[in-house]
Amino acid sequence: MHLDDLDTPVAVVDLDKLELNVREMALLMREAGVRLRPHVKTHKVPAIAHMQLREGAVGITVAKLGEAEVMASAGIEDIFVAYPIWGEAKWERLRMLSRRARVRVSVDSEVLAEGLSEAFSRHGERIDVLVKVDTGLGRTGVPPGEPTLRLARKVEKLSGLNFKGIFTHEGHIIRDFGSVEEVGEAVRQVAEKMRGTAELMRREGIEVEEVSVGATPSARIMCGEEGITEQRPGTYAFYDAMNVGFGVVPEERVAFWITCTVVSTPASDRAVIDGGTKVFSSARSSKVDGMGLIRGVEGARFAWANEEHGVLDLSSCPGALRIGDRVHVVPVHVCEAVNLWDELVAVRNGEVEAVWPVLARGKVR
Amino acid sequence: MHLDDLDTPVAVVDLDKLELNVREMALLMREAGVRLRPHVKTHKVPAIAHMQLREGAVGITVAKLGEAEVMASAGIEDIFVAYPIWGEAKWERLRMLSRRARVRVSVDSEVLAEGLSEAFSRHGERIDVLVKVDTGLGRTGVPPGEPTLRLARKVEKLSGLNFKGIFTHEGHIIRDFGSVEEVGEAVRQVAEKMRGTAELMRREGIEVEEVSVGATPSARIMCGEEGITEQRPGTYAFYDAMNVGFGVVPEERVAFWITCTVVSTPASDRAVIDGGTKVFSSARSSKVDGMGLIRGVEGARFAWANEEHGVLDLSSCPGALRIGDRVHVVPVHVCEAVNLWDELVAVRNGEVEAVWPVLARGKVR
Repeated sequence: MHLDDLDTPVAVVDLDKLELNVREMALLMREAGVRLRPHVKTHKVPAIAHMQLREGAVGITVAKLGEAEVMASAGIEDIFVAYPIWGEAKWERLRMLSRRARVRVSVDSEVLAEGLSEAFSRHGERIDVLVKVDTGLGRTGVPPGEPTLRLARKVEKLSGLNFKGIFTHEGHIIRDFGSVEEVGEAVRQVAEKMRGTAELMRREGIEVEEVSVGATPSARIMCGEEGITEQRPGTYAFYDAMNVGFGVVPEERVAFWITCTVVSTPASDRAVIDGGTKVFSSARSSKVDGMGLIRGVEGARFAWANEEHGVLDLSSCPGALRIGDRVHVVPVHVCEAVNLWDELVAVRNGEVEAVWPVLARGKVR
Repeated sequence: MHLDDLDTPVAVVDLDKLELNVREMALLMREAGVRLRPHVKTHKVPAIAHMQLREGAVGITVAKLGEAEVMASAGIEDIFVAYPIWGEAKWERLRMLSRRARVRVSVDSEVLAEGLSEAFSRHGERIDVLVKVDTGLGRTGVPPGEPTLRLARKVEKLSGLNFKGIFTHEGHIIRDFGSVEEVGEAVRQVAEKMRGTAELMRREGIEVEEVSVGATPSARIMCGEEGITEQRPGTYAFYDAMNVGFGVVPEERVAFWITCTVVSTPASDRAVIDGGTKVFSSARSSKVDGMGLIRGVEGARFAWANEEHGVLDLSSCPGALRIGDRVHVVPVHVCEAVNLWDELVAVRNGEVEAVWPVLARGKVR
């Protein structure tokens, strides 16, 4: 079956490109002597997680417990839940999960550490914990240095918890800068904060096994930094328009797109495709002009979208598309786009090789 | 079971408010002598569609064939597919569907009309067709007046098609204006375009049974306009932050929200909840400050979100939230938010009365 024979809209993964992306990142990390623990939020597909592990990843990263459960059910044995897991219901699920897989979890507050400790220790069980450090994103995490040391000491003292190290997500890199060329110094600052914090803790007698960072746009630069033990990039499996706009990779390296059909051409400078925010998401980015990158139609711009309609501006190429034409569109933010789909169609040279259910889609609890 | 006993994030429908919204719109239309055919894209739940029909709707509106199939399977017999359905695969599905339900479909080009005609007439079957008129949104549809007349004449001549009338979606009302107070004249212009086009067609001997419009923000004003036979509002079943911001209803009328838990309070002016763009969508609107309306926390602002994190700005109410607190958030655009959920929990006075699978979620083909 060829991609051209499938009805649209359809979410497509190019296997050659996916494999190249997965291998290249694994090689990069191997050469830098850094452990790779990819965030699977990008694809949400166990088959791709297994591909990443086969190429040398030491385990995977997820945000939600529900994602961890899906991945563990698919035979993945080493999972980092990089999220503050809160509440009795979730702690009990986490405890059950940790019997089936090697699980580590995030902590960024004393109250969370105490809750986790109580949930595990009352059963005589333990869980590995990494303390989240905020290196500039301003979301979760504690400040580097003394505050992280204080929380780590607390974790060390609590029964049921094994302190394993520290981690951060340097997501502010792509938010605060215009291109990957500009971020070298910012990436070095992130590394310095993590390294400095780990050194402070070691001087205080705390064993810091893991110093973990993670974001695709900074992954390559981060490989040049000492003292980082692990990276957790996610988007690199597919890449997306945001990464292209930031200069991380050229557009032809993107392994994911959505194939749509032109269903209306109400004017010579406008074409409407059969996919909108329900297939691309509403994600916008200062790195991308419009709602995505249109492949192979010179001058066409993805101007706006509603749920089911994508409106292409053809004013630079009037009449370039006709009703029935197929258009391949790279979304702005692939992680959000994939989360809308029940399945992805994996092709090689346009021929369908696999259909992957997006098993971790919508696992928000 | 009380809502407070459910783990978060959870998507909640308030039954008292939903019923009030559904009844009020039905009453409004009945009093205006207009048929109500709600767009079910807002809820995607057959049980709510049946509620709308019980209160007097003549049928439902959907965008995608997949949504129509779900609704027909749930016993709904009168469905308008308000979308340009293109291609042999979809025409065959549409033909099968039209044997099980009373189906009407949209046409906005000659080439689409010809394709539909061929697909139905070669089996000696027919389908009801409405011509889409663009009254200002600039998406699909043909201009009012002569161009609509020409396409209607074409549809009338083609075998397999029954011309039933014209329809528009006046979605530019909320896009182009600041508040519902400002739109009176714009709504009148939409009505005049539709009325004038219908009159032109009738003078030319074409029977125009349906003159259909549809958008929640203009629904009430449109009731004062002559010559409109049908309205197709959608969002009114729940309403959302965009409708509140536009002044369509006060915030307490919104029947849908997402309950989240505070999982991190890294600073006294910041709280992070366990829901982000994977539960709210990335939708933004000039009518809403931030990513949604936070209920019951004076001064809290939903500043930004990533997939799993919602960041609340508490600078106007430092320390107002603690880890473990529950927060109820009305999304910017409810139709996109609902499309992310596998099920909605319906409550009355906080007690769970039903759990509804979102059966038409993700039906993009």
